Amino acid sequence: MIRAYHLDVPRLADHQQRRRQITDAARTLVARQGLRAATFQAVAAEAGVSVRLVQYYFGSKEDVLRATREAVAADAGRRFAERLAELGEDAAPRDVIRAIVTEVLPIDARRREDAIVLDTFFLEALTGERSPDVPTDDSDGASQYLVDVMRQTIARSRAGSPEQEHADIDARLIVAAAAGLAQTMLVDAAIARRAEEHIDRLLDRMLPESAKD
Amino acid sequence: MIRAYHLDVPRLADHQQRRRQITDAARTLVARQGLRAATFQAVAAEAGVSVRLVQYYFGSKEDVLRATREAVAADAGRRFAERLAELGEDAAPRDVIRAIVTEVLPIDARRREDAIVLDTFFLEALTGERSPDVPTDDSDGASQYLVDVMRQTIARSRAGSPEQEHADIDARLIVAAAAGLAQTMLVDAAIARRAEEHIDRLLDRMLPESAKD
Repeated sequence: MIRAYHLDVPRLADHQQRRRQITDAARTLVARQGLRAATFQAVAAEAGVSVRLVQYYFGSKEDVLRATREAVAADAGRRFAERLAELGEDAAPRDVIRAIVTEVLPIDARRREDAIVLDTFFLEALTGERSPDVPTDDSDGASQYLVDVMRQTIARSRAGSPEQEHADIDARLIVAAAAGLAQTMLVDAAIARRAEEHIDRLLDRMLPESAKD
Repeated sequence: MIRAYHLDVPRLADHQQRRRQITDAARTLVARQGLRAATFQAVAAEAGVSVRLVQYYFGSKEDVLRATREAVAADAGRRFAERLAELGEDAAPRDVIRAIVTEVLPIDARRREDAIVLDTFFLEALTGERSPDVPTDDSDGASQYLVDVMRQTIARSRAGSPEQEHADIDARLIVAAAAGLAQTMLVDAAIARRAEEHIDRLLDRMLPESAKD
């Protein structure tokens, strides 16, 4: 009996995979055609599953979108954590900050879609009918996390210097510049190709103590 | 006869005023509830006119939205030109650049709505079904104009210095930081209250030749 029970109910991993398949489909639709495109029907078709299955996992279109927003934010957070782990604890502060800025930029197709999707949810939270129950701090929470890591990194690199007290505002300005550059890069391929040059100049100016020359 | 004709047809100024009344209403709706809220019915109700009048001035919902986007961009451009004219030709480069950054930030209700509306149209152009005939360079065109003025101002202030060659990239980074700060300020009132402090620090770092100390 117990064994039969286990056979009948999909394992947790399968459930998660199914949900993931559906939120990936919603993510693709939102990135290419905006929120209005993410209907139950369209999401099911894009995911290659039945509308009933989407309804089984997500009660409403709002639930699909909320889960999609969370999945995209979690992906970005995981990518960022992996990048930090690769750099290791002894990484130079400038390298850590460079990694943070780079993660925010739409430097490949996936990050480009993520940037559009997160911007879309950000605006939706500001203007949508569902504003009250959608925390606006979701995309902002993600960028607050980036600001926190960056602030700590800058503060550590300036230990003992009077500039240490500006670590917070400098971190916020660098993240802001990265977010603004990301928007420009979404529509301006020439700037997107010069991402490295822009990052280097930004860090040379905002963190002169880290500049090479 | 000629006189009667003039009496029957509303003057051009009235036409423009009517169109303006309608795009102002659409602007308000988009800023508060997103693009989907700007239906013919809702725009007419918000403007206090009949649906037929909206249809008379604008053939389609797309036309209302296109005119609204143009009106918001034109307003921002006019405000900016006025600000530059107030400063006069002898203004210090830092004051000109400060004025540009300040104009981009949502420092009052009107600029806050403009920021949301322009971001909304920006994303719509990236993901909307109407992408092909909506130039994506509209909000980008506005920021390109800001970058151009800023680049010229920085280049002039660095005449004879080797730093002059970086005027273009510095202008782009300052505008990017302003755009990113604007997004943060939309959701973070504490940062919005510290706008001056952020602008000063940004300019001190990006334009060290203009720093006071």
